[in-house]
Amino acid sequence: MLSLLAEQLEAARDRLEPAVFDYYSAGSGQEVTVGEAEAAWGSFRLRPRVLHDVSTVDLNVELLGARVSSPFVVAPMAFHALAHPDGECETFAGAGRAGALGVLSTRSSRRIEEVAAAATAPWWFQAYGMRDRALTHALVRRAADAGAGAIVLTVDTPYVGRKGKVSGVRIAVPDDQFLVNLAQHLVPGTVAREAAEQDPSMTPDYIAELAEVSGLPVLVKGVLRGDEAVRCLDAGAAGVVVSNHGGRQLDRALPSALALADVVTAVAGRAPVLVDGGIRTGTDALLALALGADAVLVGRPLLWALAAGGAEAVAAALDALAEDLRHVLAVAGAARIAELDSSMVIRL
Amino acid sequence: MLSLLAEQLEAARDRLEPAVFDYYSAGSGQEVTVGEAEAAWGSFRLRPRVLHDVSTVDLNVELLGARVSSPFVVAPMAFHALAHPDGECETFAGAGRAGALGVLSTRSSRRIEEVAAAATAPWWFQAYGMRDRALTHALVRRAADAGAGAIVLTVDTPYVGRKGKVSGVRIAVPDDQFLVNLAQHLVPGTVAREAAEQDPSMTPDYIAELAEVSGLPVLVKGVLRGDEAVRCLDAGAAGVVVSNHGGRQLDRALPSALALADVVTAVAGRAPVLVDGGIRTGTDALLALALGADAVLVGRPLLWALAAGGAEAVAAALDALAEDLRHVLAVAGAARIAELDSSMVIRL
Amino acid sequence: MLSLLAEQLEAARDRLEPAVFDYYSAGSGQEVTVGEAEAAWGSFRLRPRVLHDVSTVDLNVELLGARVSSPFVVAPMAFHALAHPDGECETFAGAGRAGALGVLSTRSSRRIEEVAAAATAPWWFQAYGMRDRALTHALVRRAADAGAGAIVLTVDTPYVGRKGKVSGVRIAVPDDQFLVNLAQHLVPGTVAREAAEQDPSMTPDYIAELAEVSGLPVLVKGVLRGDEAVRCLDAGAAGVVVSNHGGRQLDRALPSALALADVVTAVAGRAPVLVDGGIRTGTDALLALALGADAVLVGRPLLWALAAGGAEAVAAALDALAEDLRHVLAVAGAARIAELDSSMVIRL
Amino acid sequence: MLSLLAEQLEAARDRLEPAVFDYYSAGSGQEVTVGEAEAAWGSFRLRPRVLHDVSTVDLNVELLGARVSSPFVVAPMAFHALAHPDGECETFAGAGRAGALGVLSTRSSRRIEEVAAAATAPWWFQAYGMRDRALTHALVRRAADAGAGAIVLTVDTPYVGRKGKVSGVRIAVPDDQFLVNLAQHLVPGTVAREAAEQDPSMTPDYIAELAEVSGLPVLVKGVLRGDEAVRCLDAGAAGVVVSNHGGRQLDRALPSALALADVVTAVAGRAPVLVDGGIRTGTDALLALALGADAVLVGRPLLWALAAGGAEAVAAALDALAEDLRHVLAVAGAARIAELDSSMVIRL
Repeated sequence: MLSLLAEQLEAARDRLEPAVFDYYSAGSGQEVTVGEAEAAWGSFRLRPRVLHDVSTVDLNVELLGARVSSPFVVAPMAFHALAHPDGECETFAGAGRAGALGVLSTRSSRRIEEVAAAATAPWWFQAYGMRDRALTHALVRRAADAGAGAIVLTVDTPYVGRKGKVSGVRIAVPDDQFLVNLAQHLVPGTVAREAAEQDPSMTPDYIAELAEVSGLPVLVKGVLRGDEAVRCLDAGAAGVVVSNHGGRQLDRALPSALALADVVTAVAGRAPVLVDGGIRTGTDALLALALGADAVLVGRPLLWALAAGGAEAVAAALDALAEDLRHVLAVAGAARIAELDSSMVIRL
Repeated sequence: MLSLLAEQLEAARDRLEPAVFDYYSAGSGQEVTVGEAEAAWGSFRLRPRVLHDVSTVDLNVELLGARVSSPFVVAPMAFHALAHPDGECETFAGAGRAGALGVLSTRSSRRIEEVAAAATAPWWFQAYGMRDRALTHALVRRAADAGAGAIVLTVDTPYVGRKGKVSGVRIAVPDDQFLVNLAQHLVPGTVAREAAEQDPSMTPDYIAELAEVSGLPVLVKGVLRGDEAVRCLDAGAAGVVVSNHGGRQLDRALPSALALADVVTAVAGRAPVLVDGGIRTGTDALLALALGADAVLVGRPLLWALAAGGAEAVAAALDALAEDLRHVLAVAGAARIAELDSSMVIRL
Repeated sequence: MLSLLAEQLEAARDRLEPAVFDYYSAGSGQEVTVGEAEAAWGSFRLRPRVLHDVSTVDLNVELLGARVSSPFVVAPMAFHALAHPDGECETFAGAGRAGALGVLSTRSSRRIEEVAAAATAPWWFQAYGMRDRALTHALVRRAADAGAGAIVLTVDTPYVGRKGKVSGVRIAVPDDQFLVNLAQHLVPGTVAREAAEQDPSMTPDYIAELAEVSGLPVLVKGVLRGDEAVRCLDAGAAGVVVSNHGGRQLDRALPSALALADVVTAVAGRAPVLVDGGIRTGTDALLALALGADAVLVGRPLLWALAAGGAEAVAAALDALAEDLRHVLAVAGAARIAELDSSMVIRL
Repeated sequence: MLSLLAEQLEAARDRLEPAVFDYYSAGSGQEVTVGEAEAAWGSFRLRPRVLHDVSTVDLNVELLGARVSSPFVVAPMAFHALAHPDGECETFAGAGRAGALGVLSTRSSRRIEEVAAAATAPWWFQAYGMRDRALTHALVRRAADAGAGAIVLTVDTPYVGRKGKVSGVRIAVPDDQFLVNLAQHLVPGTVAREAAEQDPSMTPDYIAELAEVSGLPVLVKGVLRGDEAVRCLDAGAAGVVVSNHGGRQLDRALPSALALADVVTAVAGRAPVLVDGGIRTGTDALLALALGADAVLVGRPLLWALAAGGAEAVAAALDALAEDLRHVLAVAGAARIAELDSSMVIRL
């Protein structure tokens, strides 16, 4: 873990209520998957190149039309207000300063429109296929209207993963936070939290439905297999995010670091492939990019940054990651991300 | 290990006499095999599916004509009265409440007919090929008369494995418990414990013999190789149980988790394949089922449950395992066991 | 390690002078090889058979004409008088009681003829190709005259391995012990210890030379490669011993457990293959035999036994190993060593 | 690690200022690569030969015309004056006593000509492709004039690796040491340290440029891939050094022990291949030579020796390594380095 990120983590541990810290940290089941994400990147070694011109290093990335300053993307995470009073507004202000793409969670604790107003860089909106389909439709339309560039459909949550370690310290997110984006669309008398659950009967045709309703490209998040990625693309997905939901859903799922190559091979360049899970240094990102990812999402570290120091700290974390990536890219002999390839990566 | 099972284990450790706890816990030799059963399941990772309809999840299983509510089966274990005054009657009452199939040991501390009366779900009878063949014949006939649906012939005990760690704390099972099923059949003057030993000259033709005598299908328990499984089927076996006898027989035998795929491949669908050894969570079971098992036997955890809280605790343990399996099945993208396949499993 | 062997080791540690214990225990270099011998056997797992008639188990072995009661052989080791006043006489008396073959070291602390008189089971004589060739010739002739059944030529000692840890606590073997077999053959004025060093220019033609001089079959000890084993057989060897000299010569040499299969494959049944290094249980021996060894040598444990309780303890250790082998052979489904094959062994 | 080297390391730790010790010890990033160099050699095992004539063992090596007494070479390292008042003069005097080739760093703290006067064995000069090309030209010409036999061009430092652990304890090398070789060539007004940085735009054509300017063969140091080694040879390199810069540049680069075979295979005998990183015993060197290296560079241990006891200790360290190599070469069954081959090495 980059030293700045480690410091922000410690600061967050100090500042956050233990139950909140645990809520963010927790993984499902026996916490195998949450615990091995970072180490999975660490199981690779680099085969650097030499004597290539790296006098300038270019980290710019274009993702479905969004031009951003680096391949680091803010992962969608729920309820930023637990970490900072201004919640996602602060996070996305920080991402903007760093020129980084952010993905706003359906379960944000600030309204889509407020966050959109605070964001100064491109952003996407994360959606669930909720039991109340009209609710999702309403949300993605609002996101599109507010300027979202794409929809990221989370598909690995047909039921919420059981968090073993924190089962006794459930945090109670107040309704006004939980419903901030939803309240206005609820049919009177419905139980909001049930309506907002993922519909476990969701199938791939939901991808095209969401694209049509939103008018935006739809990426599918939570894919760990090449065949499933292709199934999503065939159903209209504009990209996939290789992810095990930060180890919060299926415990003992394959680490995303070890699932990435299979997905990249199967997708075969048809669409962008992003990845999250355990990216904590520029080298982790370099490995992901060399294995074929187009961008990498960073989750918990940015919540720790948010808790530790608001937008400024979020920007600092993203800048530090980008700067570290820039450095290792050059030392590994690549001046641009496009110069990376899988021959630079070997598993020990 | 599922948290309820861990709690019941601790409760059992408190309540049982240390010698009894050690007797149940022990493995043979240097206890390598008993110690690595659970970790062997832990060496696999899952490759989940997404966007499959998992709005209802069906765990029902049919095993040689027995319809049960989940693939969890009570493994045959000796002398339940050491753990609870009502012994197997209590265990099988609990299994019945959970709708789970149970396998009654020849060495039960309650008579076959008593347990049969307490059982409310289908049950099978575990037999040894004893030195006194008439004894085995008498037992399997009684089991059939009492309603057993199948015979499970244990074949990995030509001699009883030497338990390294507990050699000094042998428990003395009183004759009235040891002989509860046997006493009525013994020829006067025979040494009961010798007559009841497994006949080390037993060969596969014993399978057909037992099937004929009992009129029941015979599964062979204690198989760790595909070629041996086929040899048993060719000799008339109706199924096999992949097992190393809970690490109590041949120390350093292959963990059943790692032997399963070979057996499944060799059996090639001709007959059901069950597996036991180290199954402690729904995910362990999911892995076994995805690798081709038709059901999974659970042993020691149910003895701990029995000791901790009788039938109610046994039912609770079985229910918790089934509920955990139901959850991970859905989160892994499968609505029925039949939707699992080996592509969902990868060894790290 | 078998529990009796562990107890004898502790007894020996108590009784022996620390410098002697260290001398016996030591390995060369950083002691990598000496430290991993036992664990290398432990890296294998067994695939047992079932439903084979194991009502009688036969451990008898015939090795180059010697019929012995089990495949356990006393490895050649120097200076047993450091462990027991009667030295090798006591060791070989113990081996005789157990019906086990013993290999007497050139560096015995009792004269060949004395040990031969004490031995009641077949024995072989271990020789070095010494710088003074006449010395070796004289020794092997005496061994043949005294009844040795074969010569075991140690070839992995062109120079004595440097024992890192005990370099500061060199034991001083008194000349009368060092020279017990040699003194009568020394040309006046020669430096005995130099004459007795292995000739580092020794090549395979020495095998035939020794066979001719002694009139006995010559096994080559210290082989870790199939190609080198074949080279020895082509030069007249009657067998090979896969060994890294108990980790006392080339540190970081391959464990013999991992070298065995290569040698067995290359030898292809032309001659017996024995193995030593880390054999501490019947299961270790079973693994070696299943991988194709014809017998297994046991070294340090028998020195510990000798120190702990003389001939009786040596016999007890050998008997315990044989009894353990007999048990695991049966439980693994084999009634004779010839029924073992490499399909019973798998490396984790 | 050879025991003498371990003692010298401890002595150096006592004598050096902590900041200097840390400066020398440090690796980049999370110090993964610096920490695993030695263990990577330790992951190999040896397959020794037997019955080969090893009565004389020859370690002599000829490297691009330089005949030296062993394959151990002093690696180029900066600022020896931090470890000893006489700096590189003392180091190279020690190398000379041991008959070992040394590589003098551009960043030596004694002038090239002074070191050349102190050196009594062949030596090479290490160069960077500096931003001020005239500076490099001037240095390599001076080195050639002073008697260097070859130029070793370091190519893995387009930017200086970030040393995580010592970032807070930067040592301040005084300008008079930093500039000792450079001062006379600097254009007035230039910032010396910037001019002396590696030019990150350097490409392979620089190899031929340097060969022409210096009139010497140019080896490229810092190669970890076979394809990159071939690229360097095609551009005129006379040899390559497999190295990850002692773990000080790209963290998580492949250990050189694991990169060597790929480079040797790709180079296919066209030019010498040297290797550094974690060589701490004769066995480490034997492994490198058996895998195809022509010589091995030793770095930090010689700085520790220099700090511990000046030239004498440097010579003692090199002698001890050579003597250890001589011993293990013989015990492994090889009388000359040319008798080693990759069949002697196996990875566990």
